[in-house]
Amino acid sequence: MFNRRSLLGAASLAAVSKVAMAALPEPVSQTSPETQPPLIPPTGRPYNPVVTLNGWTAPWRMKDGVKEFHLVAEPVVREMAPGFTARLWGYNGQSPGPTIEVVEGDRVRLYVTNRLPEPTTMHWHGQRLPNGMDGVSGLTQPAIPPGKTWVYEFVARRPGTFMYHPHADEMVQMAMGMMGLWITHPRTRHPHIAEVDRDYAFLLNAYDIEPGSAVPKVMTMLDFNLWSWNSRIFPGIAPLVARQGDRVRIRVGNLTMTNHPIHLHGHEFEVTGTDGGPVPRSARWPEVTTDIAVGQMRQIELLADEEGDWAFHCHKAHHTMNAMGHNVPTMLGVDASDLEAKIRKLVPGYMAMGQSGMHEMTEMQMPGPANTAPMMAGEGPFGPVAMGGMFSVLKVRRGLPRGDYTDPGWFQHPPGTLAREVGDAPAAPTAPGATTPAAIDVNVRKPQGHHDHH
Amino acid sequence: MFNRRSLLGAASLAAVSKVAMAALPEPVSQTSPETQPPLIPPTGRPYNPVVTLNGWTAPWRMKDGVKEFHLVAEPVVREMAPGFTARLWGYNGQSPGPTIEVVEGDRVRLYVTNRLPEPTTMHWHGQRLPNGMDGVSGLTQPAIPPGKTWVYEFVARRPGTFMYHPHADEMVQMAMGMMGLWITHPRTRHPHIAEVDRDYAFLLNAYDIEPGSAVPKVMTMLDFNLWSWNSRIFPGIAPLVARQGDRVRIRVGNLTMTNHPIHLHGHEFEVTGTDGGPVPRSARWPEVTTDIAVGQMRQIELLADEEGDWAFHCHKAHHTMNAMGHNVPTMLGVDASDLEAKIRKLVPGYMAMGQSGMHEMTEMQMPGPANTAPMMAGEGPFGPVAMGGMFSVLKVRRGLPRGDYTDPGWFQHPPGTLAREVGDAPAAPTAPGATTPAAIDVNVRKPQGHHDHH
Amino acid sequence: MFNRRSLLGAASLAAVSKVAMAALPEPVSQTSPETQPPLIPPTGRPYNPVVTLNGWTAPWRMKDGVKEFHLVAEPVVREMAPGFTARLWGYNGQSPGPTIEVVEGDRVRLYVTNRLPEPTTMHWHGQRLPNGMDGVSGLTQPAIPPGKTWVYEFVARRPGTFMYHPHADEMVQMAMGMMGLWITHPRTRHPHIAEVDRDYAFLLNAYDIEPGSAVPKVMTMLDFNLWSWNSRIFPGIAPLVARQGDRVRIRVGNLTMTNHPIHLHGHEFEVTGTDGGPVPRSARWPEVTTDIAVGQMRQIELLADEEGDWAFHCHKAHHTMNAMGHNVPTMLGVDASDLEAKIRKLVPGYMAMGQSGMHEMTEMQMPGPANTAPMMAGEGPFGPVAMGGMFSVLKVRRGLPRGDYTDPGWFQHPPGTLAREVGDAPAAPTAPGATTPAAIDVNVRKPQGHHDHH
Repeated sequence: MFNRRSLLGAASLAAVSKVAMAALPEPVSQTSPETQPPLIPPTGRPYNPVVTLNGWTAPWRMKDGVKEFHLVAEPVVREMAPGFTARLWGYNGQSPGPTIEVVEGDRVRLYVTNRLPEPTTMHWHGQRLPNGMDGVSGLTQPAIPPGKTWVYEFVARRPGTFMYHPHADEMVQMAMGMMGLWITHPRTRHPHIAEVDRDYAFLLNAYDIEPGSAVPKVMTMLDFNLWSWNSRIFPGIAPLVARQGDRVRIRVGNLTMTNHPIHLHGHEFEVTGTDGGPVPRSARWPEVTTDIAVGQMRQIELLADEEGDWAFHCHKAHHTMNAMGHNVPTMLGVDASDLEAKIRKLVPGYMAMGQSGMHEMTEMQMPGPANTAPMMAGEGPFGPVAMGGMFSVLKVRRGLPRGDYTDPGWFQHPPGTLAREVGDAPAAPTAPGATTPAAIDVNVRKPQGHHDHH
Repeated sequence: MFNRRSLLGAASLAAVSKVAMAALPEPVSQTSPETQPPLIPPTGRPYNPVVTLNGWTAPWRMKDGVKEFHLVAEPVVREMAPGFTARLWGYNGQSPGPTIEVVEGDRVRLYVTNRLPEPTTMHWHGQRLPNGMDGVSGLTQPAIPPGKTWVYEFVARRPGTFMYHPHADEMVQMAMGMMGLWITHPRTRHPHIAEVDRDYAFLLNAYDIEPGSAVPKVMTMLDFNLWSWNSRIFPGIAPLVARQGDRVRIRVGNLTMTNHPIHLHGHEFEVTGTDGGPVPRSARWPEVTTDIAVGQMRQIELLADEEGDWAFHCHKAHHTMNAMGHNVPTMLGVDASDLEAKIRKLVPGYMAMGQSGMHEMTEMQMPGPANTAPMMAGEGPFGPVAMGGMFSVLKVRRGLPRGDYTDPGWFQHPPGTLAREVGDAPAAPTAPGATTPAAIDVNVRKPQGHHDHH
Repeated sequence: MFNRRSLLGAASLAAVSKVAMAALPEPVSQTSPETQPPLIPPTGRPYNPVVTLNGWTAPWRMKDGVKEFHLVAEPVVREMAPGFTARLWGYNGQSPGPTIEVVEGDRVRLYVTNRLPEPTTMHWHGQRLPNGMDGVSGLTQPAIPPGKTWVYEFVARRPGTFMYHPHADEMVQMAMGMMGLWITHPRTRHPHIAEVDRDYAFLLNAYDIEPGSAVPKVMTMLDFNLWSWNSRIFPGIAPLVARQGDRVRIRVGNLTMTNHPIHLHGHEFEVTGTDGGPVPRSARWPEVTTDIAVGQMRQIELLADEEGDWAFHCHKAHHTMNAMGHNVPTMLGVDASDLEAKIRKLVPGYMAMGQSGMHEMTEMQMPGPANTAPMMAGEGPFGPVAMGGMFSVLKVRRGLPRGDYTDPGWFQHPPGTLAREVGDAPAAPTAPGATTPAAIDVNVRKPQGHHDHH
């Protein structure tokens, strides 16, 4: 066996000097939470770049045939939604950090500078690489101390969707927002990788920030109160825009502590790839909700053939509600014990209730501490949308210019295609056992012993 | 951009009148928690109807070639198990509401009346439909106010298993029980949709009702104490009955806040469809437990070729135990600190213990508040079954009449097929290091360095 | 209908006598938590035996063509990690119990002795068997009383990975550690079952043991503080060893209360089987993280073609951290409110921070109660690994002898394949809006309206 010191010696630190430092690529920073346009690759390396929701793609420089990136781990300020700002840890000015976007076969060199108050590492989740580049603190390298810059280098061998995140004090550092996406485009046509018209990407993350505070509690294990996409919550999450007829890929990775069933309205999709690689066509099936486990990446693909504004969200109801109900009793319109007493008097007949559910929350301004996440917020074309976390909208429109990601506004429904009011409620329902009025032809044959549907 | 008012104007409310109101189909109500027989379709539209566990299928009327349904959102009383009644919100007298059952290609018109104390909408989960019929409050329509009736209309384009539920104040309204199933049968033979002999359907739901209370706490996010199928808990859940040799489909949807691994004893099954559509045969694999995420529907199919009473349940142990352990310490037979002291004296030898586990709970009547869910209840042919939530039994019998869903009682085991007592425990196990008695031929070759299995 | 008494009568207890008792196979016990070598089958029944991580395979005896096993349910002592011992319930001296390993078509007779203070049963999860051998208390048998021995018998009809566990007071008994693996090897070549070079198996389990205590709290439903593999936690979990080029199968079953996304570094794998059977090749896809739901077994297979020490762990960060953060505030290096005040002064520039994250925990000895699970422990070749629960290492080495499972020590990285320090952090990042220094050729074409990546 050998010890740590001899291994470090083997890594040849001799080449490091002030000269080498001067040659680092300049770290580029981004402080806006707006979705940035795709980073179109220069001629000669054609691929359809991704659009990172409320994020951006890192620029690189070529040096001796190697793509060089420089990531800086540092405290950042993130506007999670209009009016609510969190103080997180991230990379290059934001959480998540910039998306790394390369091509299969590229040799990549990544400089990682640590401006945090504690050691960190960088793990390149899902990549094939030399074991010593895997970034697991203690196991494949010592942690990067504060104030130091380290370098990783490997060839991007597999096309697909990956992540980067620390593998040192990782529960704390991911709870603070340290993560980013990595996309490796295929070099040539791949039988199980489709060419798509639109390619979106985002990470699922979660925070526990007390109302009025700005810094996550890093020891929370289950009961988070902010469920976010790329550290944004609805109505702060950008819409996904598609031209009717577009084939759309959406790449989603999960770095929270629980599964998220991601649900799309109005369209079916397939999971066409994972961070392990493309899913063969024979193994695919249609879904409207795919469950993404922690540490998993899922590429979903759909044909955006239905015009409209289609909700796209985590189907766990409290992940679209966020702080609502998190020990904020004075904000609640429902008191269960009162409700119970009232309902006792009501059932089975119906009477007006003084207490009601939470819908009224959506129509009033609740006074709350400063810098509090909006609760059941977001104004739609028909009033409050009443969501507050992992929720966005897929906007499908006819005839959008290819490559135009501009928000087209709300959908204009063709006449006759909207649900509509037809009048007041009819009288209380027929009591059980009553017969069906003759005017109604209940189109049913009743078998022997069939319950009377009166 | 345009505003909400102009959109509503475009929807042409002019046609609504008292005359139109009079033409609504009469809402039909059901208050029994018993499983109703399948609603056999009239000649001309043949399909094998589903059986909704502890539920029923909504009748419809044909009007000008359109199938018309009328759902009424309202407070309901639900017997969740014998002796335990909850006050929920549902549709047409029960929670869940009636199952909607139509045929691919049917044009469907659904009237939704709101008798709740707060606004609601209806979202037709998984359907292809005009965006304006999608029922997302604020995004595709204003919420339906209390006392009003709205209408939705679309063609059931895809065969499969779907749900309906509110998309307005949805965390509260689903926590109160508002949901229902929607089955669209294929119009013609489909290569990936099998014809089955029995077709069952139910929804997974969860409630947080304090012992002695009847109304769910609607702000609970994780720590529910009632895990139910169609708002019923064992022993209140109906058995699934099959004739030996039947091909059985079971459709399950999840509207709780967590995954449920649904496990069947004695048989393997395949997931043959989701709310996204049928799973191609090449993509299927055998399971005995399938994990159903929130918002997902799963169609599982099996050949019921093993006679017997086969447990069928969620495999998360606390989902079959319910209120047990939910801060009811005086009901517990185990005190960990005492147990520790006792076990310290025992190990590695065995002595009688004064304290024991929870099994004794199954054999005694625990005094509790009135209207409390039974804890580890259910009497089987061999004593207490000791379950209390998401648990039922698949009863497979020879020679049942086709279409007969009557509970056949407990299985009569053929002689020699039951586990049985063979005597008292032998003396305490051989101490480590002792040699194997010569009388026992341990049929093992020991490789070099192999631990002595004496 | 018939009653319990008549059923018991039918089971013919007459044959039980002192003579029968004397013929029981001697129960064999194991008290070491070390991984035992594979139990190589005698000539005539060749198969490649599994290696149970920190476990062992039960010996059997042949009697009249039947493989006879004897399992004893009893209190056990389990060293969960060096320095931390738990008092659990298990089988034959350990939790989990011994792995049962048989061949497809074998007739198996299993004696189960109950040395616990309460009744139990044995359920043979996933098996095809006579209904009366299914082991569900109340439903298919009365529970086995303390001090008694029962017998089960059936043919192992399907090859695959299964479990055994009680189906009586099961939440308590599984919370105490009662479970074991069952492997049925295929009798002949199967088109969807590969022959592998290494075959590992373990169960996921979870405990809630207060610091300083040794007995699990059995009523915990969600908030466990010990997430373990075969009742061991890192650094107590044995490494998985493979020769470079080996095809490796890893069989994992989950008997906790939540999903575990099992993640492997540096390699992709496929799920090739479940407890339902083999996954057909057409239905497989590549993963680096597979989510294992409660009650599920997953067989994953990979080609171990990358040399090195590859982390293998649950990707839920708190499942590799265990007790950290579980209401042990005095042990935490981070105070959120202080951190907030400090970070306010820092952003966007960087300053030294007095408070930091949790990394420092890894480098100090925290005083804690006696017999407390190590927190973020494990010493690697480069310092503390900073993990504490469901974490192990796949060690891939060239030229290992076939069948040699000895830990080869830490990987010796070839020169030039380690991440390395290149110097101090450069000056604070360029402020937003600043232009890119001319020296850096940011290799990007900016489309119209493209954000300035300066």
